[in-house]
Amino acid sequence: MTIDHRSASSSLQQLLATHTAAELLAKLAPKRTPLAPRVPSGGIDGEAIAKRWAALAGHETSQRVLLDEAKLDGASVYARNVENFIGTVNVPVGVAGPLRVNGTYAQGDFYVPLATTEATLVASYSRGALLISEAGGGTAIVLREGVSRAPGFAFESLHGVGQFVAWAVGALEDLRRVAEATTRHGKLRDMRVNIEGNHVYLIFDFTTGEAAGQNMVTIATQAICAFIDEHSPVKPTYAFVEANHSGDKKASLQSFLSGRGRSVTCECIVPAALVEKRLHTTAQMMANYWAMSAMGGVLSGTIGVQGHYANGLAALYLACGQDVACVAESAVGVTRFEVTGDGDLYASVTLPNLIVGTVGGGTSLPSQRACLDLLGLSGPGSANALAEVCAAVALGGELSIVGALVAGQFAGAHQRLARGVTAGGSSSTTPNASKP
Amino acid sequence: MTIDHRSASSSLQQLLATHTAAELLAKLAPKRTPLAPRVPSGGIDGEAIAKRWAALAGHETSQRVLLDEAKLDGASVYARNVENFIGTVNVPVGVAGPLRVNGTYAQGDFYVPLATTEATLVASYSRGALLISEAGGGTAIVLREGVSRAPGFAFESLHGVGQFVAWAVGALEDLRRVAEATTRHGKLRDMRVNIEGNHVYLIFDFTTGEAAGQNMVTIATQAICAFIDEHSPVKPTYAFVEANHSGDKKASLQSFLSGRGRSVTCECIVPAALVEKRLHTTAQMMANYWAMSAMGGVLSGTIGVQGHYANGLAALYLACGQDVACVAESAVGVTRFEVTGDGDLYASVTLPNLIVGTVGGGTSLPSQRACLDLLGLSGPGSANALAEVCAAVALGGELSIVGALVAGQFAGAHQRLARGVTAGGSSSTTPNASKP
Amino acid sequence: MTIDHRSASSSLQQLLATHTAAELLAKLAPKRTPLAPRVPSGGIDGEAIAKRWAALAGHETSQRVLLDEAKLDGASVYARNVENFIGTVNVPVGVAGPLRVNGTYAQGDFYVPLATTEATLVASYSRGALLISEAGGGTAIVLREGVSRAPGFAFESLHGVGQFVAWAVGALEDLRRVAEATTRHGKLRDMRVNIEGNHVYLIFDFTTGEAAGQNMVTIATQAICAFIDEHSPVKPTYAFVEANHSGDKKASLQSFLSGRGRSVTCECIVPAALVEKRLHTTAQMMANYWAMSAMGGVLSGTIGVQGHYANGLAALYLACGQDVACVAESAVGVTRFEVTGDGDLYASVTLPNLIVGTVGGGTSLPSQRACLDLLGLSGPGSANALAEVCAAVALGGELSIVGALVAGQFAGAHQRLARGVTAGGSSSTTPNASKP
Amino acid sequence: MTIDHRSASSSLQQLLATHTAAELLAKLAPKRTPLAPRVPSGGIDGEAIAKRWAALAGHETSQRVLLDEAKLDGASVYARNVENFIGTVNVPVGVAGPLRVNGTYAQGDFYVPLATTEATLVASYSRGALLISEAGGGTAIVLREGVSRAPGFAFESLHGVGQFVAWAVGALEDLRRVAEATTRHGKLRDMRVNIEGNHVYLIFDFTTGEAAGQNMVTIATQAICAFIDEHSPVKPTYAFVEANHSGDKKASLQSFLSGRGRSVTCECIVPAALVEKRLHTTAQMMANYWAMSAMGGVLSGTIGVQGHYANGLAALYLACGQDVACVAESAVGVTRFEVTGDGDLYASVTLPNLIVGTVGGGTSLPSQRACLDLLGLSGPGSANALAEVCAAVALGGELSIVGALVAGQFAGAHQRLARGVTAGGSSSTTPNASKP
Repeated sequence: MTIDHRSASSSLQQLLATHTAAELLAKLAPKRTPLAPRVPSGGIDGEAIAKRWAALAGHETSQRVLLDEAKLDGASVYARNVENFIGTVNVPVGVAGPLRVNGTYAQGDFYVPLATTEATLVASYSRGALLISEAGGGTAIVLREGVSRAPGFAFESLHGVGQFVAWAVGALEDLRRVAEATTRHGKLRDMRVNIEGNHVYLIFDFTTGEAAGQNMVTIATQAICAFIDEHSPVKPTYAFVEANHSGDKKASLQSFLSGRGRSVTCECIVPAALVEKRLHTTAQMMANYWAMSAMGGVLSGTIGVQGHYANGLAALYLACGQDVACVAESAVGVTRFEVTGDGDLYASVTLPNLIVGTVGGGTSLPSQRACLDLLGLSGPGSANALAEVCAAVALGGELSIVGALVAGQFAGAHQRLARGVTAGGSSSTTPNASKP
Repeated sequence: MTIDHRSASSSLQQLLATHTAAELLAKLAPKRTPLAPRVPSGGIDGEAIAKRWAALAGHETSQRVLLDEAKLDGASVYARNVENFIGTVNVPVGVAGPLRVNGTYAQGDFYVPLATTEATLVASYSRGALLISEAGGGTAIVLREGVSRAPGFAFESLHGVGQFVAWAVGALEDLRRVAEATTRHGKLRDMRVNIEGNHVYLIFDFTTGEAAGQNMVTIATQAICAFIDEHSPVKPTYAFVEANHSGDKKASLQSFLSGRGRSVTCECIVPAALVEKRLHTTAQMMANYWAMSAMGGVLSGTIGVQGHYANGLAALYLACGQDVACVAESAVGVTRFEVTGDGDLYASVTLPNLIVGTVGGGTSLPSQRACLDLLGLSGPGSANALAEVCAAVALGGELSIVGALVAGQFAGAHQRLARGVTAGGSSSTTPNASKP
Repeated sequence: MTIDHRSASSSLQQLLATHTAAELLAKLAPKRTPLAPRVPSGGIDGEAIAKRWAALAGHETSQRVLLDEAKLDGASVYARNVENFIGTVNVPVGVAGPLRVNGTYAQGDFYVPLATTEATLVASYSRGALLISEAGGGTAIVLREGVSRAPGFAFESLHGVGQFVAWAVGALEDLRRVAEATTRHGKLRDMRVNIEGNHVYLIFDFTTGEAAGQNMVTIATQAICAFIDEHSPVKPTYAFVEANHSGDKKASLQSFLSGRGRSVTCECIVPAALVEKRLHTTAQMMANYWAMSAMGGVLSGTIGVQGHYANGLAALYLACGQDVACVAESAVGVTRFEVTGDGDLYASVTLPNLIVGTVGGGTSLPSQRACLDLLGLSGPGSANALAEVCAAVALGGELSIVGALVAGQFAGAHQRLARGVTAGGSSSTTPNASKP
Repeated sequence: MTIDHRSASSSLQQLLATHTAAELLAKLAPKRTPLAPRVPSGGIDGEAIAKRWAALAGHETSQRVLLDEAKLDGASVYARNVENFIGTVNVPVGVAGPLRVNGTYAQGDFYVPLATTEATLVASYSRGALLISEAGGGTAIVLREGVSRAPGFAFESLHGVGQFVAWAVGALEDLRRVAEATTRHGKLRDMRVNIEGNHVYLIFDFTTGEAAGQNMVTIATQAICAFIDEHSPVKPTYAFVEANHSGDKKASLQSFLSGRGRSVTCECIVPAALVEKRLHTTAQMMANYWAMSAMGGVLSGTIGVQGHYANGLAALYLACGQDVACVAESAVGVTRFEVTGDGDLYASVTLPNLIVGTVGGGTSLPSQRACLDLLGLSGPGSANALAEVCAAVALGGELSIVGALVAGQFAGAHQRLARGVTAGGSSSTTPNASKP
């Protein structure tokens, strides 16, 4: 992160306004003073929890909020989802929709639970969802599914690499066998090879049934690595079950280009009249915004080009017991708006990296399960259906925020013509641009 | 997202196994049937909430979980944080630490609340936090702060662009004045200009006090845009208060290269003996892993190179009422491990895009406030301190996961020497590699 | 570079079809046999050259072509441009244009020399140049200039980093003085700071007059580093005059986002009738192509989005004695086509990284100077003018290739309507799509 | 390309110092004045060339240099390589090496012709080549080959997309047949599919024998597109034979991640003593540089991390009649230096995007052929061998420049200890850091 010398200088002066340089350096130095008491680990029973709060002396107010009587009684449901449990946070849920989805897996009108603490988010997504529904629904297709793990192997030289890769490629069926022995639902879909000098990465791609599957693929890949360790004719100098080449928990071009998790595209054609009625602008202006904002994405170096997938995905993931950290990788894709030959608005989103499941993770916890139930998603195909709903939600969010930005534009000719409306004055009644 | 023809073919066959092509196309078609009932919007009082659940007929079980008596009684606290409220989800919180931070703002031993539904996350981060603390703490520096908005302006040609930019650059003090009139805490730090043909983006960068500040900068930028609309000697064809050039809610190279929010670096030198005692490996193997995984990041096209910042940040953001959607932009940066001249382990993380605040957003909600209180962060400088804690948490997470991956490596010579330990067999006692 | 197991397997089988595995491994092994004779270094006089060719025994035919009598006589002009001289290659030059440029520096109709061995390149660029000229010329603006060097400094910890940066920011005027003492034309424009853990990069940005300036900035930065070494209150563990953070000789997001060399935008409005007359298509189809190809760029992960800047830039750089290796960094930017409110075609290119000069490098060599003279570019402002011409050439290339791709489209309705024209049949008369 | 307001302001003031605003705007305006004379197109015979120079009145000096008697006599050899021929530029060639390559295709000691106008380039690459040779040679492997074309197809909605893709995937053998009917040497290796809303890109990947193959794959893809147009059950709204998704002529993450052209890795282990003897530094310092510079690449947002592949590739491509514009895509990859367990220096380069051939393009022109002959590369497998030589050259360049940067480091302790050597003073005898 590069800063110009003026910023650096002003940051320094700000610090030196309240401290001497020596004081500052003392603050930064490692400290050998005794450490505050450890928080006891252990189970989720009342006694263990009480010991933890005892260690957190002085925080009784926090304790009362995070762990009231009811929460304490229900604590055991979290036993397999968290360690060092001290209570729960409550996140408010709003409902958006109904959102009509015409998907290969998701079919019908969905009430979408969104957990968030950010004002206007639910209102904006709900507006978008209703717009899609009025237009006949969002057509959605799961294009691909599969989650990967990427062990890395170091050799002394390309000699070893060549022998290893030749062996591994030939041993694929064995690797598949040992991998699939670890899981009822996971299937080894593909293996790819990356050779970088004397380093080799094997990228194993699995389908994971109704689960998001990150743990499943790790365990399966550990079995593969054990098999390799035992049978490879050439031993690596060192090896790791994951060498940061799988795209796990981060936005990456590789995941964007090749897919990771479930990849979905969703589209909707919004009639011109409906754009005007609901968004108070024209299909052409929506397309103008798209062109400028797509270039805005290019000019700022984003992966793909889109507006704010992260808002809807984070809220939906959180409500439905998905792994919220995966928003880092999922909130990537391509939005496109165009005017059709008939003057209507074509809008689509394509999200290649949805990490979602309807079993495992937080999906069986009480309030998260309640949200999934509200969506009606369980049983075979439900993970793919959830992915299609995610894409439709994202499409609604894009339509709504762009509509707000366009209608709230401060310099449109029609605004200047409308006497009595000061430029920019519509902002108070327009859903907030940044937090749609 | 590009898929090979085999994947495309197999996806199709999977779909066609259960449907005819005509049935599939029918599923995808827009539907004009009557829409399911709308969910009433309106306030957060008991009556409005009841009407919503009435619309969600058949979901009484979900209702009982999301909105028990206590939740209903406390609903009003969420009035400014969510729309279409129907209840709350509970997310379990574990505590990690104590984590010693030697920062320019954060000083002392912190108990870190992490809200997550993913097993092993808290255990792994806590292990890393304790390792840092035993090594004397993580030294952390806020390098920069500032959040941006980027309105876009379209002109007919470069003629208009030239006149507009010349005027805008000269009007900077006026723009600052109108922007700062909208906020007590925000300051316009800088303006940058991007000309792409006949499009101009003005990028306004604000400091936002103790708030994360996204709303603050939007309102200030709307005021700027209104001023521009009124005073610019040349009118744009169209203009938008945000043209997707600010990096809001997405990972971008621009934010990584220039910073967005609060930018922090945090380091720790872990003595060789401590690496062996706590991580059961050597500083050299930790550095070997780093080199391979850094290249893994490069080879998979990530922004920066790091392991799993998203895990710790999402859990901390969620516990502390931060905007979880911002994990998409915050979980970016650079981790580096090296062996020092003395044979110890040098470890650092640099996170340029932390979007955190101690006021606004969800920070005043009861359970989120309770978590912030546990950290002891409020008042002047607390947002910067929170950013430093975020970085130290991320550093702990990197140390812990890499330690697990290295110690659990299946091919290390020392494992083969250790009789009775089958290769890969240590995985059951090692914190899970994928979900640290 | 990741390959699927089938590719890996088929590559291996191809190799093993003609060699045994043992033979293959033997080929890859290091060889200790005596090395072929060294080529004598030394000067560019006849004797030294003759000795070199003597070492290259058996290549008399090559010698006769690369070093005929006339070339031998003129060899001395290359004394400062190449080492181990053995002759010259001849690259054919075609002329494109006239190309009208309405720039802040370039004004008038330019005959553009393009050196290339790729058929259709000159024809295609010339077609584009004439189209621009007929439309009144390309409007071009140099937005920014400056070339950087980025020394890197390693410290033991953030302690040292903090002291160093505080000192360096305060010493900027001294750094400027010693840098500018090394050059008559270079000016230190700015210094930026990047802190990544205990590493610091200082990025020095210079204007370089009429030169491209890479050597100039290296020498100036060496002087800065010497000053730092002598005066810094804290010594780095190690330091390098360039730590690969300047973007030199490579495409980088940093250079794209911040500019490197000369940054130029160039636009043209092509009347609808002229699009139809010269490109045999419509402004709308040109814009349709742009939208799809811009997304093609996004979907393939390019830096910026454009068609084939590299073709025109490489040919122009080569003809005019520029550093052809800089095509790697220069061939980056953003092309945009839109239909104007009047139905005409708006087209623009923005190239942030043009590394060009009219003095230094190969610009004074006979044939390269002859090409620069053809452009009429010398004296003050000529480097900026050359940059504007580069941008206008790139714009012409984009218009021409897109016109060819659109007119040659195999599925257009007008083709199906035109009896007797088989689909795709127009390709023989259409400038080649891939090598425009 | 974003600039801060100070830069924008200073650029403007610089322009306004010599012009009024009105004058500037007048310069930028389109001009309708008569255009300078057109340059006659037509053939490469003496008469046509003379007519061109007649149009370029006043440039007789340039004419004498670009088109002396001998050049005029030999002009006809360029008939198929350039249009609007007016002469040739001469580029000096230096020879580097001998360079020992232990490749799957390239075997032996190579004299490498490098055409450049940049001082020190040949000397630096030659130094690196000799170092590799002394260490036993560079081991090189072609990992993959194949060049792609990516036609794009637009449909009204996902309905059409689904039908089209289902058909295309099933028609692959027909597509292969029509493609391969257009070429003796090209083979359709693979087809990939990218669906983005109602847009479909088909990415066809071909092997191209000894040619670089860009034209070959375009012609083959045109045949595919004609077949699609005739036989597809659903017609696209519009379609283009190339929709900018193939990575042609530009650096892209897709090409870096998937390969394009020929993908090669090359490595060398340089004994510690040889590092000290030839590079005057240690293996550890070389590795230190690598770590800092790799992070420099990450921090500046490059594709892959490497030093200056572009220098060697541009010079070698130019000498050997390759398409120099392809340096834009080829100069991408990953360099890695490490200290081995024995204290030696491990060094490798991996270049996934080498676009080279030994037939076609400029390879049959006299001086370019002479350079290829010097390398001894013709016949079956020679294109792969050339790719392996390219990688070995790149490796030599990386070793040499890093050696220079490390040995020239101004702050090393050993320099301060060496009396009489002022800090930075070694720069005059060190190969220039920026232009190695």
